[in-house]
Amino acid sequence: MSKVSPTETERCIESLLAVFQRYAGREGDNLKLSKKEFRTFMNTELASFTKKDPAVVDRMMKRLDINSDGQLDFQEFLNLIGGIAVACHDALLVQPPHP
Amino acid sequence: MSKVSPTETERCIESLLAVFQRYAGREGDNLKLSKKEFRTFMNTELASFTKKDPAVVDRMMKRLDINSDGQLDFQEFLNLIGGIAVACHDALLVQPPHP
Repeated sequence: MSKVSPTETERCIESLLAVFQRYAGREGDNLKLSKKEFRTFMNTELASFTKKDPAVVDRMMKRLDINSDGQLDFQEFLNLIGGIAVACHDALLVQPPHP
Repeated sequence: MSKVSPTETERCIESLLAVFQRYAGREGDNLKLSKKEFRTFMNTELASFTKKDPAVVDRMMKRLDINSDGQLDFQEFLNLIGGIAVACHDALLVQPPHP
C-alpha cells in the first residue's frame, strides 16, 4: 500500500514530536524536558531567540513549568512553540494600529 | 552575512505561519479561517484525521472557535495543532498503565 507523502502540516506535527523526544530522551524521564535538556534544546534549536543567555532560558522555563515540577512535559513544550509562533504571526502580519 | 539555515524547530514554526496564511488568506479576513477555509484546510492538510467527513470538521470548528465568532484565529488554529500533537504523543509514547 503506497504511503501517501505527509502534508506540510503533518510533517510539522511529526517534527514537534521528534524534536521534543530528541531532547527529552537524553536523561531522566523520557517524557519530560529537565532544566538541562531544555537549556540544550533552546541553545540548539532556538538560539536566535535567547542569544544563549542562561538567565533568559531559566525565566522561560519557570513561566512554562505550569505544574512547577521542575520539568516541561509535551503540553508545556507546545505552549512555548505556540507562544513563539503567535509572537511571530503578530509581528509579521498584524499591523500595529495606526496612531 | 551568510544566513544560518533554520533549525527543525524554526522550520516548523515557519510552516505553521505559512500554512495558516495560505488558507486564511483565501477569502474575507486574512487573519482568520472562515468555516469554508477551515474545511478546505482540514480536507487538504489533515484529511487522514477527518476522513473528509463534514460533520466531523464542523464539530471540530465549534470546539475550536472559543470566542464563537464563526472563524478561527491563529491561536485557535494552534490549539488544533497542539491537540493533535498531544494525541499523537500520548498514543505513540505514553504506554497505557498496565492493568
